[in-house]
Amino acid sequence: MRRLLALMLVCLSLALPAHAETGYDLWLRYRPVEPAWQQRYAGRVSHYVVADRPTLIAATDELRRGVAGMLGYEPVGRETVMGDGAVVLGTGASPLIAPLGLPLAKLGREGFLIRSATIEGRRVTVIAGNADIGVLYGVFRFLKLIQTRQPIDALDVSDAPKLRLRVLNHWDNLDRYVERGYAGQSIWDWQKLPGHLDPRYTYYARANASIGINGTVLTNVNANADALRPEWLAKVKALAGVFRPYGIKVYLTARFSAPIELGGLKTADPLDPQVAAWWKAKVDEIYRLIPDFGGLLVKANSEGQPGPNDYKRSHADGANMLADALAPHGGTLMWRAFVYAAENPDDRHKQAYTEFAPLDGKFRDNVLVQVKNGAIDFQPREPFHPLFGAMPRTPLMMEFQITKEYLGFATHLAYLGTMWEEVLQADTFRPRKGTSVAQVLESGATTGMAGVANIGSDSNWSGSQFDQANWYAFGRFAWDPDARAEPIARDWAAMTWGNDPAVTGPIVGMMMASREAVVDYMTPLGLGHLMATGHHYGPGPWVADLARPEWNPTYYHKADASGIGFDRTRTGTDAVGQYAAPVAAQFGDGKRVPEKLLLWFHHVPWGHRMRSGRSLWDELVTRYDRGVAGVAAMQADWTALEGKVDDRRWREVRDFLAIQRDEAQWWRDASIAYFQSVSKRPLPAGHAAPAHPLDWYKAIRTPYAPGNGK
Amino acid sequence: MRRLLALMLVCLSLALPAHAETGYDLWLRYRPVEPAWQQRYAGRVSHYVVADRPTLIAATDELRRGVAGMLGYEPVGRETVMGDGAVVLGTGASPLIAPLGLPLAKLGREGFLIRSATIEGRRVTVIAGNADIGVLYGVFRFLKLIQTRQPIDALDVSDAPKLRLRVLNHWDNLDRYVERGYAGQSIWDWQKLPGHLDPRYTYYARANASIGINGTVLTNVNANADALRPEWLAKVKALAGVFRPYGIKVYLTARFSAPIELGGLKTADPLDPQVAAWWKAKVDEIYRLIPDFGGLLVKANSEGQPGPNDYKRSHADGANMLADALAPHGGTLMWRAFVYAAENPDDRHKQAYTEFAPLDGKFRDNVLVQVKNGAIDFQPREPFHPLFGAMPRTPLMMEFQITKEYLGFATHLAYLGTMWEEVLQADTFRPRKGTSVAQVLESGATTGMAGVANIGSDSNWSGSQFDQANWYAFGRFAWDPDARAEPIARDWAAMTWGNDPAVTGPIVGMMMASREAVVDYMTPLGLGHLMATGHHYGPGPWVADLARPEWNPTYYHKADASGIGFDRTRTGTDAVGQYAAPVAAQFGDGKRVPEKLLLWFHHVPWGHRMRSGRSLWDELVTRYDRGVAGVAAMQADWTALEGKVDDRRWREVRDFLAIQRDEAQWWRDASIAYFQSVSKRPLPAGHAAPAHPLDWYKAIRTPYAPGNGK
Repeated sequence: MRRLLALMLVCLSLALPAHAETGYDLWLRYRPVEPAWQQRYAGRVSHYVVADRPTLIAATDELRRGVAGMLGYEPVGRETVMGDGAVVLGTGASPLIAPLGLPLAKLGREGFLIRSATIEGRRVTVIAGNADIGVLYGVFRFLKLIQTRQPIDALDVSDAPKLRLRVLNHWDNLDRYVERGYAGQSIWDWQKLPGHLDPRYTYYARANASIGINGTVLTNVNANADALRPEWLAKVKALAGVFRPYGIKVYLTARFSAPIELGGLKTADPLDPQVAAWWKAKVDEIYRLIPDFGGLLVKANSEGQPGPNDYKRSHADGANMLADALAPHGGTLMWRAFVYAAENPDDRHKQAYTEFAPLDGKFRDNVLVQVKNGAIDFQPREPFHPLFGAMPRTPLMMEFQITKEYLGFATHLAYLGTMWEEVLQADTFRPRKGTSVAQVLESGATTGMAGVANIGSDSNWSGSQFDQANWYAFGRFAWDPDARAEPIARDWAAMTWGNDPAVTGPIVGMMMASREAVVDYMTPLGLGHLMATGHHYGPGPWVADLARPEWNPTYYHKADASGIGFDRTRTGTDAVGQYAAPVAAQFGDGKRVPEKLLLWFHHVPWGHRMRSGRSLWDELVTRYDRGVAGVAAMQADWTALEGKVDDRRWREVRDFLAIQRDEAQWWRDASIAYFQSVSKRPLPAGHAAPAHPLDWYKAIRTPYAPGNGK
Repeated sequence: MRRLLALMLVCLSLALPAHAETGYDLWLRYRPVEPAWQQRYAGRVSHYVVADRPTLIAATDELRRGVAGMLGYEPVGRETVMGDGAVVLGTGASPLIAPLGLPLAKLGREGFLIRSATIEGRRVTVIAGNADIGVLYGVFRFLKLIQTRQPIDALDVSDAPKLRLRVLNHWDNLDRYVERGYAGQSIWDWQKLPGHLDPRYTYYARANASIGINGTVLTNVNANADALRPEWLAKVKALAGVFRPYGIKVYLTARFSAPIELGGLKTADPLDPQVAAWWKAKVDEIYRLIPDFGGLLVKANSEGQPGPNDYKRSHADGANMLADALAPHGGTLMWRAFVYAAENPDDRHKQAYTEFAPLDGKFRDNVLVQVKNGAIDFQPREPFHPLFGAMPRTPLMMEFQITKEYLGFATHLAYLGTMWEEVLQADTFRPRKGTSVAQVLESGATTGMAGVANIGSDSNWSGSQFDQANWYAFGRFAWDPDARAEPIARDWAAMTWGNDPAVTGPIVGMMMASREAVVDYMTPLGLGHLMATGHHYGPGPWVADLARPEWNPTYYHKADASGIGFDRTRTGTDAVGQYAAPVAAQFGDGKRVPEKLLLWFHHVPWGHRMRSGRSLWDELVTRYDRGVAGVAAMQADWTALEGKVDDRRWREVRDFLAIQRDEAQWWRDASIAYFQSVSKRPLPAGHAAPAHPLDWYKAIRTPYAPGNGK
């Protein structure tokens, strides 16, 4: 009786002060499966065969954690197969796995194979790779099968990443301020490093490894040379030690003028031997501390950053000098193609191509040129960047922005998977029809994808529950650029919110429609770059007084009495000429260009007849309202989920959708008020006038909005 | 069988993915009591009698939460007493409680009474107050009895706060940066307010109410007028709504020049009728939104802040003008006495007294003059501020700094209860011997205590587990300035780390010795203000080149070839003359002044013979080493607790103690290296030379240290 009481107390004590879910668990939530599934799965995972290398220990720890959470017991580790249900982990060389002769050869260093097999007469599950990291990836895939309620009785799954570098870019400053960060401070608590390793670093590594991310650039591309000082490198080394078992390398950003600022040199000219020697010594110093350091990322000669052009050298000169310092250590140099210059009057859309395309073939083998998905700057919708396919002898890596600088910060629900799929599946026609951006990325000796992280110190990691999906989706697309947004959304929803189709169905529906709603209420029909200045929070289509022309929204929409849109055809800036001929022909033709990109490439009269039969002006207003209605629809869907998901996360999403609704209305009203002041046209029937006059919207100031550059 | 399986699954599912303790629970941890106590307590809390006003609902929610966590079941609410073990909550006017004739009269609005009683023949526990907030305080006290394993069979407890205003001062900027914050960002997520109320706000309110805090100043004393704009007041209103049921009023800081910045006036002269009218209108606007708004806090004419002196008006002129605006609404004006002026060459120690003492009796009734515990600035040790007792006709409130700007940021373990007790128990001799600072605070029509908060977005709230104790202790001292540090530490340790004496014993021991260790390794023997510039991280006793003399550490220690220390006796600045005659006589006499304050008041030759028999120089070195040894002793105590407290919190404390040890050594070595360069004396036998030459310490730069003013 006394023992029973004690047992009940233990059980109750664990049950009662249950912590509300904050979202900290991410998609590694590992909640109990339904009893029917429990019985089906449990016999398949009775124990596992132990391993003793760091990455394999991480793998078995994850297996224990996942099974404990989902199936209710902790599988034990044994030296060998003790009966049915063993999970055998290891490389193809391990004694239990080698005799099976598994087809691992084509899977590369990071691939894996999961197979139901018989060892010593016992039914087991083998999770194998060519290297330990493949085994860890395999364990995460195996757990995902349970998380998403797939059978695990007769498995034969193999997979391998299509890109080599799958990296997060943290735009995190050394004082923990995150540029374009909407999830609190940087998770790197530099002040307490290297003395204290926040357990969060390990969770971060697990989350990344679970989706195949294998690199992280710790510091902002608007770089601070101090990150390369010895006292900072000691902190970086400590983080590298946490991440190493999870197959994640650390990278840093390099400020191009560091030889001057740290080295006391008079120049940072990449062709100066002293400069090259300084960088070589610095890189050698880093590798002495961190032998598997990943490499450097550089933003040069863009938005005020120093670079080789300061010395009349090319981007290739700058990149190659750093690449030579990294090469002996196997390091990679990532060089951003996001450049535009104050003194260059040409269409900003064209400048990166103009500068980089002639450099094709001039970069060292260990250079990756990092190209944003579009030619401007992570807008809700942009056509794919014309550099993709235009540098066949240069490895290009994709840069996506996971953090929602231009898509509503933390509070707007906007699943970016659809945007990324749209770009990756775009046909470059280079060298020929059918060559997608994804294929361009997958070709070449070195391949990669970078995502500007949306991760911060908030308990939910990403600023909102749904922004976790963008981190997750980024990893999936980096692993397989040919992946599709919808199944990724389904996986994430099931792992994050549970497997009830009455829950995941609406959630996936919301996600799949969400980005198009943002496009509609912010920048429909190919508009872009219409946000307020600096922090980029809220609408500012009227802004016309900034120092550089291409900083002004009016530069981008060019609305006047006659019409709206940026003429990038041959009669305009001829930016279309940077695309392959068939693409240029389509984008350059007002009749063939997709309407969703119309105003990106064409200046169009307000009265222009759209495919809907409406005038351009009426269509524009209609799209704005469609965007607001899209948010209202998400609100209705979410309201219906009350009680079907945990209360704390449900309320947070509810509140954020209400904020999104208000701000969608703000975007819609402010934009219509402004454009109407230009078009002088009446609103179409059934569409309400903005709630306030234009000056009211212009007067809004939000100087404390988060994530500003500084 | 199926049902048993299902039950076990539920139990296991709750048990297994147990969240590691982050410290988020604070001292409201409510973990299960031991079985023997469970049986003893459970019969005493079978149900409670329901209540329907917001504060009483908060009280019963807390009762359910605490009992569920500690006793393993949720007591139910009933309309009346249903049997033994009822907990009856309400005011003295409630029908069940009124007939008991409880002695509530002397307890004031916020006091409470807990009594075991018989109602309708049933044994019950009554928790009563004169107002609902007293009942809430009583529930927290009742739960504390269980948390600390006190009997609850025959209760007769009554208590009431000795001070009226018990407020936190958040030095939080509108962009979430916290000046002198070492626990992440501000917990006020302004960007998402008022649309989203983070559940953390409610937890914050519960924690504060549990220790009797009844006010919170949301914004930095280095104030931003934008906090008074309508869009910001809407956010403040939302927070006030969360805090209201917990008896917590919100306050804001007022930037004195706001009439110019927001109102477009040409002056902020407090005697200008337009200025007074602007403030009256602004205050009226605030009270229309928040009828129970607490009032305003002002830092004026100090460290660059605007104030009445800018218009040749006194602090009383400025304070009274704002007080008049607040008075019709019952609001309070808190006016800081922390002033010192660039143009004033007098000893900074003297300036606040010189400026404020003559104003005694000139302030409105609803003004509280807020005085720091010492005359300089929250140093590890300062003598009590000479203003205490010197303004008998003016209500003075204490300002303590909970955040450890000068005591090691987040990572150093320094329990401040001992420091606060030392100050509060100091004898002012005003008007006569035996009048402690605590008694000064408790006298007068309006009374209060302010604590500069150490609360931020970190999951552990305060930057470290042990810094929670300082938040807790502040509340306890604000409730009762005559409280003692040691029992407060014992309560906190039991509630936060569990009731095992083998755990709480060492923890309380560490806490009680901790602040003296910090004094020893940073500023022994009455030294002060020796930290590095700006961020105040680490030692900087050599700094002598800052624009204002009193910003330089050399101003404070005045070390030269002849000796060290600041002569504040009659032969020096005569700061001692600001104290009551007996205090002045003691502090001013090199033989009678406590050695712990020796160098605060005296310039002393290096060879001066101390009570230990050592020379001053040898004693100084000995104290530095004693400080480092004190940290080593804490490390040893903590190491012995491995496995006796939860692992995650244990590791965090272990890491922070190691950081503290390293930084104590840094302080010790840098200080000795510097002072030795002045004293030219050899180190006493058995005391090691600093690890590096002085220039090595001088070269240390930590520009990204957190919490800097900006």
